Amino acid sequence: MIIDETGILVLAIVVSLLSFGVAMYFYHWVRLQQSHNKRISEIGKYIQKGSNAFLKREYTVLARFAGVVTLLILLFLPQPIWMGDPKKNIIMALAYIFGTVLSALAGKIGIMVATIANMKAAEAATKGIKPSFLVGFRGGAVMGMSVVGTSLLGVTLVYVLTHDASAVLGFSFGASSLALFAKAGGGIFTKTADISADLVGKVELGIPEDDPRNPAVIADNVGDNVGDVAGMGADLFDSNVASMAAALVMAMALDKSGGGFLNIAMIFCYASLGLLSSAIGVISARMGKKGDPTKALNGSTYITTVIFAILTAAATWLFQFRWRIWGATAVGLLVGVVIGIASDYFTNDSKKPVRYVAKASKSGPAFTILSGVSYGFLSILPSMAGIAISALLAYNICAPIGEGYAMFGIAMAAMGMLSIVGMIISNDAYGPIVDNARGLAEMGDLGDEVLKITDELDSAGNTVKAITKGFAIGAAGLTIIALLGAFMSEVNAAAVEKGLEKITSFDIMNPLVFFGLLIGAAIPAIFSAMLMLGVDRNAQRMVDEIHRQFREILGLKEGKQGVVPEYEKCIDIATIGALKELIPAGLMSIVVTILVGFIGGVQAIGGFLTGNIVSGLLLALFMSNSGGLWDNAKKYIEAGNEGGKGSDTHKSAVVGDTVGDPFKDTAGPSINTQVTVVSLVSSIMATMFLTFHLFG
Amino acid sequence: MIIDETGILVLAIVVSLLSFGVAMYFYHWVRLQQSHNKRISEIGKYIQKGSNAFLKREYTVLARFAGVVTLLILLFLPQPIWMGDPKKNIIMALAYIFGTVLSALAGKIGIMVATIANMKAAEAATKGIKPSFLVGFRGGAVMGMSVVGTSLLGVTLVYVLTHDASAVLGFSFGASSLALFAKAGGGIFTKTADISADLVGKVELGIPEDDPRNPAVIADNVGDNVGDVAGMGADLFDSNVASMAAALVMAMALDKSGGGFLNIAMIFCYASLGLLSSAIGVISARMGKKGDPTKALNGSTYITTVIFAILTAAATWLFQFRWRIWGATAVGLLVGVVIGIASDYFTNDSKKPVRYVAKASKSGPAFTILSGVSYGFLSILPSMAGIAISALLAYNICAPIGEGYAMFGIAMAAMGMLSIVGMIISNDAYGPIVDNARGLAEMGDLGDEVLKITDELDSAGNTVKAITKGFAIGAAGLTIIALLGAFMSEVNAAAVEKGLEKITSFDIMNPLVFFGLLIGAAIPAIFSAMLMLGVDRNAQRMVDEIHRQFREILGLKEGKQGVVPEYEKCIDIATIGALKELIPAGLMSIVVTILVGFIGGVQAIGGFLTGNIVSGLLLALFMSNSGGLWDNAKKYIEAGNEGGKGSDTHKSAVVGDTVGDPFKDTAGPSINTQVTVVSLVSSIMATMFLTFHLFG
Repeated sequence: MIIDETGILVLAIVVSLLSFGVAMYFYHWVRLQQSHNKRISEIGKYIQKGSNAFLKREYTVLARFAGVVTLLILLFLPQPIWMGDPKKNIIMALAYIFGTVLSALAGKIGIMVATIANMKAAEAATKGIKPSFLVGFRGGAVMGMSVVGTSLLGVTLVYVLTHDASAVLGFSFGASSLALFAKAGGGIFTKTADISADLVGKVELGIPEDDPRNPAVIADNVGDNVGDVAGMGADLFDSNVASMAAALVMAMALDKSGGGFLNIAMIFCYASLGLLSSAIGVISARMGKKGDPTKALNGSTYITTVIFAILTAAATWLFQFRWRIWGATAVGLLVGVVIGIASDYFTNDSKKPVRYVAKASKSGPAFTILSGVSYGFLSILPSMAGIAISALLAYNICAPIGEGYAMFGIAMAAMGMLSIVGMIISNDAYGPIVDNARGLAEMGDLGDEVLKITDELDSAGNTVKAITKGFAIGAAGLTIIALLGAFMSEVNAAAVEKGLEKITSFDIMNPLVFFGLLIGAAIPAIFSAMLMLGVDRNAQRMVDEIHRQFREILGLKEGKQGVVPEYEKCIDIATIGALKELIPAGLMSIVVTILVGFIGGVQAIGGFLTGNIVSGLLLALFMSNSGGLWDNAKKYIEAGNEGGKGSDTHKSAVVGDTVGDPFKDTAGPSINTQVTVVSLVSSIMATMFLTFHLFG
Repeated sequence: MIIDETGILVLAIVVSLLSFGVAMYFYHWVRLQQSHNKRISEIGKYIQKGSNAFLKREYTVLARFAGVVTLLILLFLPQPIWMGDPKKNIIMALAYIFGTVLSALAGKIGIMVATIANMKAAEAATKGIKPSFLVGFRGGAVMGMSVVGTSLLGVTLVYVLTHDASAVLGFSFGASSLALFAKAGGGIFTKTADISADLVGKVELGIPEDDPRNPAVIADNVGDNVGDVAGMGADLFDSNVASMAAALVMAMALDKSGGGFLNIAMIFCYASLGLLSSAIGVISARMGKKGDPTKALNGSTYITTVIFAILTAAATWLFQFRWRIWGATAVGLLVGVVIGIASDYFTNDSKKPVRYVAKASKSGPAFTILSGVSYGFLSILPSMAGIAISALLAYNICAPIGEGYAMFGIAMAAMGMLSIVGMIISNDAYGPIVDNARGLAEMGDLGDEVLKITDELDSAGNTVKAITKGFAIGAAGLTIIALLGAFMSEVNAAAVEKGLEKITSFDIMNPLVFFGLLIGAAIPAIFSAMLMLGVDRNAQRMVDEIHRQFREILGLKEGKQGVVPEYEKCIDIATIGALKELIPAGLMSIVVTILVGFIGGVQAIGGFLTGNIVSGLLLALFMSNSGGLWDNAKKYIEAGNEGGKGSDTHKSAVVGDTVGDPFKDTAGPSINTQVTVVSLVSSIMATMFLTFHLFG
């Protein structure tokens, strides 16, 4: 059976609508859960208000930014409007806007459901762990289903309406650029609040986490939503779109050179089946009899993986797709699982690294840091090797098909790794929802039994996060390699148009490539530093404010009845700080890319992207894993090991956790997006760099 | 005037002998300085004994290792002995042994003079800062002059005797492989002792640095010698040899393809003039009237730079060398200065980064770490950009000369940056000598006035270190790029011999290159982690031992007359630990290189080396600079700022310093050597990788 464009369109639209259906069903299901506790709904409203207020202000800033970019695209991309076809500029600008809007929507939907699900999950915990788990998970699944549905629908529409690679890249750039800033802004907000609340509350005053006396406690919960839910939603929306875009651009180039519609069909078909598998996985997710939430989450991930492999094999047989490409996709999926398991090893508290760091903390915080940094460095190898091997395999599997298929194979491996992204987002969004639920349970005085349940759910969220992060970073790595291929095919399309010679390689021995390589490698480090300094500056401001409140509001420290801290002030500080800091880092990486391109032309950009990928992967893996490791080492000690809560060992571990917070939740996960954005900027500016450059 | 081989030989030998003369003169001058204080000479003897004992045991281990490597070279390199010309194998093996012996000698000479100069400098401090400075500096200069003299003589002899590129590379590999392990072993020893002494002494018991009651205090001083003096000597010996080797291999290839002897002559001539300039700089070094030791050290560095530029210009004119290549050399030198200044900015306590970190420490150790990591990340850009730009300029300056000259230009830029290495080593070795002198002054009860002087000298050593480290890392970066060129020319020499096609590029889009790239990038991180975990494990053992001594030796804590701790036990722990940990990390990097070569052939190795350079530079700069920054932030606070000594802010800064210690003195500076070794392994195994490989 041969599938045509109409068939694909129908399939993608049907699956997207189906996933929206699942999302809506879950959304209503979550809303219909009981809520009686007045205190919880009161605080929950605070969180909701704070989250929406931040999102509104963030989107206002970003709308202005996007407006400027739209204007620039209209004027200059893919070619200056007076040199090329103005229609192309308009299409790209529209696609860009479409990308930003959908990306913003993804964040908005996430916040909407997460700020309800947190309350419901807290109350459900009074009835036991299973119902509470289900509320948390289905809340996350609303986001998972709608984000992936939106991205599939978006890419499909852009393709069908334009049949233009530039438009697809423009759409992807819209999604990425918004994600970059949303992730950075949310990441700074959440860690500002988290660190400040911990530092004054836990460390200085010795009051428990989520104690309502702490003025930063609501800001902390708002942060979970705007950083982990909205930011992450935008981020994975972007990764998913980028991996499809990279594959699509190459498939369209193959189509032009006579490869036919088959490869394009395959992309949409596999993406649809990935979403379908995720939907099945999400619907079937339940906690087993033993009641282990980690197992439930991982179990449904593995089920999704298997379903996807089977469905795509069936489709490949049915529609006579190329088995080699299916093989590349399967390799990506498989290696994703391996990377996930490796990440888990370095952050799971039953494994050696976490235990070692917990033990080293006995000798003081310096040893917590040193051992954590060391294991963070070690954790790089399995993932890097995994990405390297999967790229090598995918390339070699697909190379025999014909010219251009090798790189397409890598792109399909990336899509394979991201195929179950619907499931990954559901798992990821589950984390902050139950984290919030834990806070609400504490503030709503639901008692120790309930807290124990929410603690367990929260801890499962942390463990699963390591695996999903491994997946996300691995997939980003492959996607970006594929984007390098997309960049080359864009350059060559432009070269053909300009009557220039085609580029077939980026040679390391070319000093322009090497120049780009070194500069590109420095960018993720600078980017991370800027974000972390942002958190650092902001947190110092907020700590001052918390101190002021405890000093000036009489009876607050003692917990006098009726005395409430000024929560809004803390939310305000986090908001203003985040808005101030979110633009520079992202802008720096975009501006440097443009500079390098205009200095060294496409060869320098080839090196630049490569350096950026390599150092980006290195730092993202290091920071995500060491951050997760410190977090879990602290939790391991809090569970009564190595001296337990309140011991000096615990204090050392808290230092590690505080350092790890912006590592794993601000800088680490933003690097992916930074690298993606830079790759897309390069691709959409390929013609410009080819036309205008200083050297070479 | 045209210079021939005899002329070059005479020049190099005369300058080498001259530098040995200067070294010997300074050595005797230092020995003839007064020494009356019995206590100081007693403790000094302890340090001497401990240092020599460690060196002996370390060299015993390394001799066995070198023996095995020699055997392997004899059997397999450059080709399996049964396949190629056995004479070549014998020459390479001999050159390898020669390299290891000279490298070991460099370390030995350093220890010999440093363990005398420290006592003399301590006593000279009773007469004022100027005489004490001169003793410290001339002690360092003995090492500077003899190390560089030895390396120049060594390379000259190997070249004149063999005229064989493989032998030169074998010699360089001998120097590097020994340096790798000496640096790692010394680095682990010194930081084990330093951290443990500080942790128990300063932090737990609140006794001053270098207090003779502290059982680890002698081990700490021994560490300064075996880590900073011997290790660093071997390291810079290696960098210097490697930069000459890389240039020489390319010049020999140019000679073969008709370029003539001129380029070879230029290498030896410039190296000789660099040594000569350093000798002049070293002899003329004096403290000015205002008595600022930092100015005196930097001043003589700048003088050396200017003299070198003038002398080489004169030689270029006289011997009709190519001005373009002189230009590349000058670019290297200039960019070295710029990188040094940038490193200084990030570690100088009168600049923003150190002040910011000191201030952030008020909020707790987590902020010390976060802000230090952030500035460490930021510090990467200027150096990376400097290396990138100098490589680009050197390439473009020399490319018009003809084929092959562009890469040769980069090699000459590296030589330019390292030309003043004699001066750099003198400055670098000055540091641990006055650091030791400070310890001896404290333990010999020379009084507060003297301590103030030695403190000032010590602090100058730290500041200058940042600049010399910047130089060293920058030069290593360029050297390794040049070694990539050397690797390619070795591969092509082998390819011609085997009748295979020449390689002209390493294409990033080739999946084998990309595969190598990702694996290569992971290696420096793994290597650093292994070394740091070594320090971590070792320090924990030593802390236990110190605790035991304070517990079991009655009267020790109280400082009862006549009660002495068991210094040897601590030295023993550091020694045994260092010997155990020094082999695995270095071996890992060599083994992985060989694996990648046999898996992916020369293309994978091209990528591997590139990834290794990029991530090696990134991590080396990050760790060296953040470590130096934390050290100086602590000192800045100790000088009475932000709360001063003993405040909570100070305690936070001590945590930063402890983390920074293995960053800047164990892992950071070893990475250079790791990358160099891996490059050389690749070059000497080029034929093997070309012949035997799994893919490609």
